[in-house]
Amino acid sequence: MVDYVVYGRGCFNQLDEILAPRRKDGAPMIFLLDHYFENDAAFKARIPLRSNDMLVIADVTHEPKTSYIDELSQMLKDKFGSVSGVIGIGGGSTMDLAKAVAIMMNNPGKAQDYQGWDLVKYPSVYKAGIPTLSGTGAEVSRTTVLTGPTRKLGMNSDFTPFDQVVLDPELIKNAPADQRFYTGMDCFIHCIESLKGTFINEFSRSYGEKAQDLCEEVFLHKDKWDEESDEKLMMASFAGGMSIAYSQVGVAHAVSYGLGYLLGTKHGIGNCIVFNHLQEFYPEGVETFHKMVKKNNIFIPEGITKGLTDDEFNKMIDVSLGMAPLWENALGKDWQTIMTREKLRALYEKL
Amino acid sequence: MVDYVVYGRGCFNQLDEILAPRRKDGAPMIFLLDHYFENDAAFKARIPLRSNDMLVIADVTHEPKTSYIDELSQMLKDKFGSVSGVIGIGGGSTMDLAKAVAIMMNNPGKAQDYQGWDLVKYPSVYKAGIPTLSGTGAEVSRTTVLTGPTRKLGMNSDFTPFDQVVLDPELIKNAPADQRFYTGMDCFIHCIESLKGTFINEFSRSYGEKAQDLCEEVFLHKDKWDEESDEKLMMASFAGGMSIAYSQVGVAHAVSYGLGYLLGTKHGIGNCIVFNHLQEFYPEGVETFHKMVKKNNIFIPEGITKGLTDDEFNKMIDVSLGMAPLWENALGKDWQTIMTREKLRALYEKL
Repeated sequence: MVDYVVYGRGCFNQLDEILAPRRKDGAPMIFLLDHYFENDAAFKARIPLRSNDMLVIADVTHEPKTSYIDELSQMLKDKFGSVSGVIGIGGGSTMDLAKAVAIMMNNPGKAQDYQGWDLVKYPSVYKAGIPTLSGTGAEVSRTTVLTGPTRKLGMNSDFTPFDQVVLDPELIKNAPADQRFYTGMDCFIHCIESLKGTFINEFSRSYGEKAQDLCEEVFLHKDKWDEESDEKLMMASFAGGMSIAYSQVGVAHAVSYGLGYLLGTKHGIGNCIVFNHLQEFYPEGVETFHKMVKKNNIFIPEGITKGLTDDEFNKMIDVSLGMAPLWENALGKDWQTIMTREKLRALYEKL
Repeated sequence: MVDYVVYGRGCFNQLDEILAPRRKDGAPMIFLLDHYFENDAAFKARIPLRSNDMLVIADVTHEPKTSYIDELSQMLKDKFGSVSGVIGIGGGSTMDLAKAVAIMMNNPGKAQDYQGWDLVKYPSVYKAGIPTLSGTGAEVSRTTVLTGPTRKLGMNSDFTPFDQVVLDPELIKNAPADQRFYTGMDCFIHCIESLKGTFINEFSRSYGEKAQDLCEEVFLHKDKWDEESDEKLMMASFAGGMSIAYSQVGVAHAVSYGLGYLLGTKHGIGNCIVFNHLQEFYPEGVETFHKMVKKNNIFIPEGITKGLTDDEFNKMIDVSLGMAPLWENALGKDWQTIMTREKLRALYEKL
């Protein structure tokens, strides 16, 4: 689990104080800032840069690639030798980038070598996550999802979770409504997948139910978006992340990974595109999802796989079926007899 | 936060494997076992003792005293010099003992020197908590409640939380129904106090609401006690502990501390004795509590302060009013004008 969590409106202002005891002589703190804030001078001015600290604008046009991790960590090694820590400020991609770069500062080889389970050899440098968008659960997760040369897979390890998380609901208040929805639905969808999965246990259930309740409260039951909505969504993301840390996601994530791999579809919107058509697997969850889409007046893309070649469909199917634990969680041990290549192809064609 | 949490029926069987990487050459693991299990040979045989490991029966007839912490840690220092870790297996008192002894293995002086906030100087030895009774939240808390020569107050520090928690619902299944109820109500009561308090925030709220729901489910809505009840109560305790870590308790705890100090009334039953009479402060919570008492056919003692002297009442009032943050959380900044000595005396007389 994450070692330290501070929560509260305005707690971002404590960042300087939080980082002070973690600074090592001569070694800078590296702030990876989501490029969304590149031109937000006021926000940038609030980042507590000291001495040789460095602010790096994280290019999250695409979800984190292992090559980008290697590039960033090599740049930091060349420039500073070692760093005091890596602080990710942004959405799920930026937080995943920060986790992976912090790991690579202390581990040899390439990021792709660590895609998998418990492959990371040495503890990372100090790392902190500060979400400016809520839903992915990246702030609490034991993974960092990366697209490598051969697969989209996280560095799942005991060294992956952040040392510190700063949860300041004020930081998510300006998120664009559609992006907020897509990312929030990542949380809602992984709760449904976890709660309806065969791997569920009471630990995951208690977190998953709470996260789902909070999502429905802000996206369905409240009349307008206000400060309380930001606070609740931030907690939904945290609880949702805790829930899947002890269980597993399911069909939407498995299928969405294929889209992400081939088309670069981002995780949040990708999950929405897929979940939109999963009545067969999650009837109540999809019904609630449709209500939330309608109420929030959000556009969910359709027809994104139109015109793809057989090879391309096969690539997506390969990536998706490679996520065995997700399918087993969703459909049980005999998942391969249920989710055949043909059935999955038909599902991809619907998207 | 606690670093590692395993959850699952039967996961206690993984303890040997969990501890293996934490063992240091020649330094034993110390297992502090709640005296409730003193004659349970089958359970004792499951504790993974290796080489010079030591099983210590923790005398929890009374709640942990600083003098007992000093005695245990001195005994271990004399016998072994240093230890690999301290593993507490039992109820809240045993877990608090384990935390405090682990701290005192690495900190000079006496346990009473560290009663307060952030007074602990050095990280403790490795420590793990394994609850066999659920409700107190001691498995996740940042404190260890101790009765010292002058006060009942915890060692609240960043070094206090466990490194590892093992949540195995099987371990709580044989708890006596009344003890299970009293301890479960500790959770329910601190949720009510936290949710109705002035210090509440969305982090605490989401955990507190979930813990309260789970308590009501097992003690009010379910028809019989079964495995699911154990699983849910164990999660209620965990979530309740997380909730108060980020907020504060209230009237029942403040008043109960006085009973504990003077009469040695244990925390769980003490909270029940007090909460039973707190309609004025927590009307809905007390109503639900009364229903749960009735449904579970539990005896809540009355008249326990009968015949106490003025000096004794004054002592309890002093201890209780000393818990300023609890009163402020419950009654606001002007709490002293509301909870006068006279009013508190009248409340103690009702118990």
